[in-house]
Amino acid sequence: MQRYFIQSEQFRDQTILLDGEEAHHLIRVMRARPGDRIIVSDGDRLEALAELTRIDKDAAEARVVEWLAMDREPAVQVTVAQSLPKGDKLELVIQKGTELGACRFIPFISERTVVQYDERKEAKRLERWRKIAKEAAEQAHRNRVPQIETPASWKQLLQMREQFDLALLCYEQVGGSAGFRPLLQKLREEWSQRKGATPEGAETRDQEPKVLLIIGPEGGFSEREAEQAAQAGIHLVGLGKRILRTETAGLVGLACIMYEFNEMGGTL
Amino acid sequence: MQRYFIQSEQFRDQTILLDGEEAHHLIRVMRARPGDRIIVSDGDRLEALAELTRIDKDAAEARVVEWLAMDREPAVQVTVAQSLPKGDKLELVIQKGTELGACRFIPFISERTVVQYDERKEAKRLERWRKIAKEAAEQAHRNRVPQIETPASWKQLLQMREQFDLALLCYEQVGGSAGFRPLLQKLREEWSQRKGATPEGAETRDQEPKVLLIIGPEGGFSEREAEQAAQAGIHLVGLGKRILRTETAGLVGLACIMYEFNEMGGTL
Repeated sequence: MQRYFIQSEQFRDQTILLDGEEAHHLIRVMRARPGDRIIVSDGDRLEALAELTRIDKDAAEARVVEWLAMDREPAVQVTVAQSLPKGDKLELVIQKGTELGACRFIPFISERTVVQYDERKEAKRLERWRKIAKEAAEQAHRNRVPQIETPASWKQLLQMREQFDLALLCYEQVGGSAGFRPLLQKLREEWSQRKGATPEGAETRDQEPKVLLIIGPEGGFSEREAEQAAQAGIHLVGLGKRILRTETAGLVGLACIMYEFNEMGGTL
Repeated sequence: MQRYFIQSEQFRDQTILLDGEEAHHLIRVMRARPGDRIIVSDGDRLEALAELTRIDKDAAEARVVEWLAMDREPAVQVTVAQSLPKGDKLELVIQKGTELGACRFIPFISERTVVQYDERKEAKRLERWRKIAKEAAEQAHRNRVPQIETPASWKQLLQMREQFDLALLCYEQVGGSAGFRPLLQKLREEWSQRKGATPEGAETRDQEPKVLLIIGPEGGFSEREAEQAAQAGIHLVGLGKRILRTETAGLVGLACIMYEFNEMGGTL
């Protein structure tokens, strides 16, 4: 069923007002008719199965059939920090990373970032990245649209370290025996224990483990950057013996984190 | 360091002859000079660090500096069977799947495959897919180039079941609690025991576990196909609560299999 992320204000009790892009998609692309059903979500607290009651030229109205539980988000909050890659590779990372359940993306600039950073162009790109995240979240049936930050400097990224329970930087120089999997397993075990100690009903998203996954540009990180990251409490990890492209590494790391946290189908 | 896959015949004792595409890349793109070093592999038994000794207009010669161990292949053989997706999505699956360590790709046609299958065009596409696999294997520093099969029918694919220790079909209708992870874990445990029981030195690639991962087209599999797969001994599994696009599912499944088999960095 088609899903749309809308503003909280568009929910008025049991009535939902659709306009702008969503109405356009619904009316022109989906050729929806009164009686058709959709899912609407404000990406925060409200999500409902709704039936279209009126379709105008560029707006539509629907009524709530059933309020839905927002239970499709992973129990681990992963932020992907990606050094700006060439071409439209970041679009791929955002699209696929959103499908996979990332909660936030931070593009950043590091020593070997090749692309020129242009603030004016960046505003447009940011808008495009956010649109890609929204559409991917709709298609993946997610309850929330991941946040896309404005590009950060390397220094700013390091300062964000304390927001996370675990920060990992993928570093090619690390041999295959480094600790990517053991670190994740340790975090999952700690988190299970903490969860067991939390009184029923007291659980909030703030208690979910927060992981930062940092991916370098095409040319990787410099030795100096790796040292600075380690000093900031970020673990340098390898993703195995095969060399992954920059746009592949984030998705692969993300998939593995979701798998470790039992988010990829099947519980142990 | 630049890697090239060449034919076994191009190794002549300690001398390596390079021509064709590899020579072109080396001479025109890399602008290599005598004394430069490369890695050459026949993708089977021979791999060496070599130094260029002579560069002609469209051929080059190198001498072996050191024979290398071929130890970059994963200890699990994963075949990705992908129902032919639209556009150039299969190229993405082959490129990223090769980086991730897949050993074989089987494109196939199922009920809801949208693309028209054209045998003449397919020969050209197959050639292109093989080139993508070769280049991705070179870039990922793999020892082997994955095999790309000619597109199979659904019936042919089902008949291949017995070649594998475990066959998984990603099926959207399966709830989040299905057995993707438990099945992989069971396979890994069985395989560890079997490996423990194998006399030292007797190990060959034939004793590695073989997994088949089957991914449907954009519209998924029909109920009838799911039943036929189950009857053929293929497990229907889900990849979590978020819906993945067809070209994402294979890569994500592959990443998780590699993670389960300790191939993604860090041992437990």
